[in-house]
Amino acid sequence: MKPEGAVGRSIPRIDAVEKVTGEAVFTTDLDFPGMLYAKVLRSPYPHARIVSIDISQAEKLPGVAAVATWENTTDVRYNGSCSEANPPAVPVEDEQIFNRELRYVGDEVAAVAADSEETALAALKLIRVEYEELPAVYDPLEAMKPEAPAVHPCFLGNNIAGMAKFPMGDIEQGFAESDVVIEERYKLPVVKHCQLETQSAVASFTRSGKLTVWSTTQSPHPLRGLLARLFGLPAGSVRVLNPPYIGGAFGSHVGTSAKAEPIAAALAIMAKKPVRLVYDRKEDFIASPTRHSGYITVKLGAMKDGTLKALYLNAVLNTGAYACAGPDVTAVLGVTNISIYQIPNVMYDGLCVYTNTTTAGAMRGFGNPQGNFAVESTMDLMAEKLGMDSVALRLKNVMTPYAPWLPPYPCATVGLAECIERGAKQIGWERRHGKMTGDKPYKVRGIGMAAGTHLSNSWPFAVEFDNAYLALQEDGSAQLAAGVPDMGQGIATTLSQVAASSLGIDVEQVHIVFGDTQSTPYDIGSHASRTLYSAGTAVNAAGKDARGKLFAFLAGQMGVPEESLDMENGQITVNGKETMTIKEAAHMLHRNNRQIVGLGQTVPFNAPPWHAHFAEVEVDTRTGQVTVLRVVAAHDVGRAINPDIVEGQIQGSVLQGIGYALSEQIVYDARGKQAQDSFHKYYLPTIMEVPQIETILVETNEPSGPFGAKGVGECGLVPTAAAIASAVENAIGVRFHEIPMTEERVLEALGR
Amino acid sequence: MKPEGAVGRSIPRIDAVEKVTGEAVFTTDLDFPGMLYAKVLRSPYPHARIVSIDISQAEKLPGVAAVATWENTTDVRYNGSCSEANPPAVPVEDEQIFNRELRYVGDEVAAVAADSEETALAALKLIRVEYEELPAVYDPLEAMKPEAPAVHPCFLGNNIAGMAKFPMGDIEQGFAESDVVIEERYKLPVVKHCQLETQSAVASFTRSGKLTVWSTTQSPHPLRGLLARLFGLPAGSVRVLNPPYIGGAFGSHVGTSAKAEPIAAALAIMAKKPVRLVYDRKEDFIASPTRHSGYITVKLGAMKDGTLKALYLNAVLNTGAYACAGPDVTAVLGVTNISIYQIPNVMYDGLCVYTNTTTAGAMRGFGNPQGNFAVESTMDLMAEKLGMDSVALRLKNVMTPYAPWLPPYPCATVGLAECIERGAKQIGWERRHGKMTGDKPYKVRGIGMAAGTHLSNSWPFAVEFDNAYLALQEDGSAQLAAGVPDMGQGIATTLSQVAASSLGIDVEQVHIVFGDTQSTPYDIGSHASRTLYSAGTAVNAAGKDARGKLFAFLAGQMGVPEESLDMENGQITVNGKETMTIKEAAHMLHRNNRQIVGLGQTVPFNAPPWHAHFAEVEVDTRTGQVTVLRVVAAHDVGRAINPDIVEGQIQGSVLQGIGYALSEQIVYDARGKQAQDSFHKYYLPTIMEVPQIETILVETNEPSGPFGAKGVGECGLVPTAAAIASAVENAIGVRFHEIPMTEERVLEALGR
Repeated sequence: MKPEGAVGRSIPRIDAVEKVTGEAVFTTDLDFPGMLYAKVLRSPYPHARIVSIDISQAEKLPGVAAVATWENTTDVRYNGSCSEANPPAVPVEDEQIFNRELRYVGDEVAAVAADSEETALAALKLIRVEYEELPAVYDPLEAMKPEAPAVHPCFLGNNIAGMAKFPMGDIEQGFAESDVVIEERYKLPVVKHCQLETQSAVASFTRSGKLTVWSTTQSPHPLRGLLARLFGLPAGSVRVLNPPYIGGAFGSHVGTSAKAEPIAAALAIMAKKPVRLVYDRKEDFIASPTRHSGYITVKLGAMKDGTLKALYLNAVLNTGAYACAGPDVTAVLGVTNISIYQIPNVMYDGLCVYTNTTTAGAMRGFGNPQGNFAVESTMDLMAEKLGMDSVALRLKNVMTPYAPWLPPYPCATVGLAECIERGAKQIGWERRHGKMTGDKPYKVRGIGMAAGTHLSNSWPFAVEFDNAYLALQEDGSAQLAAGVPDMGQGIATTLSQVAASSLGIDVEQVHIVFGDTQSTPYDIGSHASRTLYSAGTAVNAAGKDARGKLFAFLAGQMGVPEESLDMENGQITVNGKETMTIKEAAHMLHRNNRQIVGLGQTVPFNAPPWHAHFAEVEVDTRTGQVTVLRVVAAHDVGRAINPDIVEGQIQGSVLQGIGYALSEQIVYDARGKQAQDSFHKYYLPTIMEVPQIETILVETNEPSGPFGAKGVGECGLVPTAAAIASAVENAIGVRFHEIPMTEERVLEALGR
Repeated sequence: MKPEGAVGRSIPRIDAVEKVTGEAVFTTDLDFPGMLYAKVLRSPYPHARIVSIDISQAEKLPGVAAVATWENTTDVRYNGSCSEANPPAVPVEDEQIFNRELRYVGDEVAAVAADSEETALAALKLIRVEYEELPAVYDPLEAMKPEAPAVHPCFLGNNIAGMAKFPMGDIEQGFAESDVVIEERYKLPVVKHCQLETQSAVASFTRSGKLTVWSTTQSPHPLRGLLARLFGLPAGSVRVLNPPYIGGAFGSHVGTSAKAEPIAAALAIMAKKPVRLVYDRKEDFIASPTRHSGYITVKLGAMKDGTLKALYLNAVLNTGAYACAGPDVTAVLGVTNISIYQIPNVMYDGLCVYTNTTTAGAMRGFGNPQGNFAVESTMDLMAEKLGMDSVALRLKNVMTPYAPWLPPYPCATVGLAECIERGAKQIGWERRHGKMTGDKPYKVRGIGMAAGTHLSNSWPFAVEFDNAYLALQEDGSAQLAAGVPDMGQGIATTLSQVAASSLGIDVEQVHIVFGDTQSTPYDIGSHASRTLYSAGTAVNAAGKDARGKLFAFLAGQMGVPEESLDMENGQITVNGKETMTIKEAAHMLHRNNRQIVGLGQTVPFNAPPWHAHFAEVEVDTRTGQVTVLRVVAAHDVGRAINPDIVEGQIQGSVLQGIGYALSEQIVYDARGKQAQDSFHKYYLPTIMEVPQIETILVETNEPSGPFGAKGVGECGLVPTAAAIASAVENAIGVRFHEIPMTEERVLEALGR
């Protein structure tokens, strides 16, 4: 699509200079006079009860300012995800800042604030804790058995923290009418975000009752509400902000940043001094939410011609020690994976189960990558069973624009068919049906693909709204205030582009304030691929509001009808004739005692994005190593506001999907201890694993999005694992039902 | 008047706890990692030209990061007051951050930023400057002579920086028709604000072009505009804020804080590191704006019955080396002092003249105390001449409600007669006409009085407007954002009360953000007694806007007409019946994806406040010492939003007026050097000089002000000197035409 002012252009990121010069400030960089340093004592047991805890020796250590435990800290129960799902969902508030019952290896026992990290660590060693060990369970299927130990008392019983059930049509009849029915079972691992900056917070509390928390949170406003509730403060007296940058997030900081904010705030309130708590990498691995592992069963029924008749999807997800975003993840897994294709009879059954492992929560894709791996792998298997090309099978059933789907409104624009067709052409799909050889005789190659969809936010499933101010300054520049963080995804740049185009000025004249509850109106935050699509809608509305107010003022001053006015790139015209610049108009406003403030207040629609990934892999049959050579990622992004940033999002998430497919996993030993708790032990793809990633942007110009945009942040991860598994099967003839496809597993499969 | 919700109650100040515990943060407290410290090299000459300046040795000193002079700093001309007077006033932009021509002892020659104050001071000594001395002039009457050296080339010639001329009626005919005409001449000294916190700023600049300045400024938004212009940045990329408190101001920080902000910003831009510049007390005395000294002539004509017929007022003010607020001060002196009484024929002639002394600028009263001393002393002399009681003379001519006055609109509510009558009764005015003795035979007592008026802002003389946001939070608390600083006057508390009452919630639920251009919409600032009256009007409008939006939402939800809804102290009623609390309503809003944001955008009216002071003094005829025993201060404040805070404002300014009357002055030696440059040499009244101050609040309920309020901040200073001079005359029979009435002058007068 043609650019509209600043929109549709790959302008450089506004944070680029600060980040390359090292000037950009992150939570870890904050340093206040008199600041204390916090460290956390964590449970060595997967399940235990604190019989007694003696902090007297720790408190006596010189330099120690506060020691917090379950005994001297609020017992308010909460859910760290800050999700506010709409009924019939019920909020699961199952954790306290410090729990007396410890439910995983790493659960918080106590925290110390001291004048140095060394003193804090020394104080931790002086805390005497008597534990009563309790029986533990690690697998969700085991945990659901009646005889399993109860991780929590559950309303639904059997350690079930949450469930989702989405029926459409008549699933039994759908299978009965199908010519072919297949049923497949998949197993998904625990993986971690591995964002560069760990969970971090600095909290400051004054005796007059003002709490300020700088942190890595992706949701400053909802977190502010939570902290106010936890500490019995009015929300107005609590300020939460990013400082302003976050070193990556990928869902790891939705709501709280693990417990960094609640613990830092509790200690700051006790010590009346600023307290900094920065998780080390080990804590990030063992004590901050992971992606949900679990078991997924897909039963698919089709007619001989490939028409899909019925889909049954069952997921049992391991949410670990606390529910966190688990119930929502369980729901999203279902919504997103029964909606790729038009299938008349569908049933989704999802369960989210407690175990004594690290809590699972939000992670890029939010359940969708798990479900997509299962559903899209099954689509390939169905194609094989029907003797059809798997691209052809997908195109036959693909979702079409404005078709009905699960949510009670049509599914908006759909560019899925175009994604599949253009991607297939670019990868050279016809090669899949020939023989592909590698460089060496022991190397074989294959091509595969997978399609998918996602959401652009969580409306109408949860509380979901955005506000923005756009204030014109006296020199014609503008200050945009939006409550969403920039986690590194470039949203500060993209929202500035939206504001510039909606108001009609140059993007260099827009200056954004973001991620600060004091400077911005309420916003639900940066997650769910929502930030550009949803917060951008509020920014667009604020820009239009400001433009309307400006034109009303100018029309009055100039004695012309408002409709005769136009402005582009800061040049104002009347009936197409140039009159004055925004700089001149702003000066006129100022001299007339007037500031234009645009207010945008929006509840987003939720237009799903669509995508198809094509992967080419090479398998070393001697070592079992799978190398991804090339990924073609075709995405219906609605409209690329900043194409470079959109491509960056897709490329980064494709790489994260490669890690998910081939190497990443955390496993627990028999005593519930995480075997992977460092980058040394956890196999994240490196720069050496980056394949050629070719991005195809399909622009369907979604009317509900700002300038046509949809969500894109999570999508690149969604179909990557399934596409690689599809390519691996094409190369070696083995279909993996479990990821990661490690060398060991590939070798084992080749040996069969 | 009866309280309305939070309004009309002496609630404790919201900054009280922070200030008594020492937690409150001032600019001087700021400390950032890597921060540099700045020191300034100042002119030793009253008038000189820099022939050459060599900074090479200073730059080589280890620890020095930047040295700024006129050669490497912007040459943009500006006026530090940031005043934007409306036409026909012409802005006088006569200074640069560093001037090549130096115009007073203390003028800025260079500044250094280094890793410690000691290094910065050492570096100053390494700067080699060759000066060419120029002839200097110190007195404004001398400076206007054709042969005087030119401090600046002036459009008006003869060192005249500005003028004001306000004619009403026919002044010549007025005098011709008068039975009695007297003409008196007065001389006023240079005095200083002596606010506790000196001029201070911390500036930070990033390589991406963001400038942040924390400072003692009273006008963050206008200062932001000035800094943007000085350094060629868009206003949106500049943030100016108080941190958040200011340790007193009294006009000393209107616009820039002397040159703290421009110099700190220039050094930060050069060094790319945060720079802190805190003036020491000597710099505050010699190099930050003073009150205008000058000569005032009053010619007054009256009929035998006391009816005033004509007033000619002439002021020649010394604005020192730079114009700063001088032209505006000259105008305000006239406006406020030809408006106390209804006089049909009036002429004001004001001149503002450059000399080679410290710049004079804004100081509490802004010209009014000077003019009031002259006019009100003359009123007493006229009463004597007519053989009338001076209270009776005033009451006969007093301004009446909605009477025409100088500005082209009626003068609103007027409680002046009530102020005079109640004050006279309370002081026991009849005693003035009897004999009053002191404790000792050599001590004599007297009673005197003076009346006055002021303005509640600078509309319509200057750009003048206010904006405020009031955002309801999800728990029913509210965040108020207003761009005005709290300089210690308690405005954060008072604005919170206005917001609480206008919205209808408890004041404890209002949390204010102030004095930060990033968090607040545009506001012209805290000065001109305007903050409550003007910014309060915007806050009130924001509260009403939020209330209207809330009621519209609730009416829709509940199916009742909006008019049936009411809310007081957070309790919502429908037709008088309690329904829900604001907490419940806010939660309902939140669950409906909605935040209520009230936007207040106002241009203030300008209703003058009125006041009459009555003083009782004792004069020691042996030492010449005048002791003020008692001051009755009766003020038409419109409405006291927080009576304790209003009384505090009046009491503080009465004491400042006592210092003006009796002890404070700065004199210059023959080489232009200030003789008073420390608290040791400058005789500020101490706690021992505080008399019994009795405040009478007259509430005229001004319709244009928030809940009836008018300006009050400056008024207590205005008539104090004249009232004391009146009482001194009553005690010793000598009328002083010059202040301060020091022991020496009193003894000299007694000797005559």
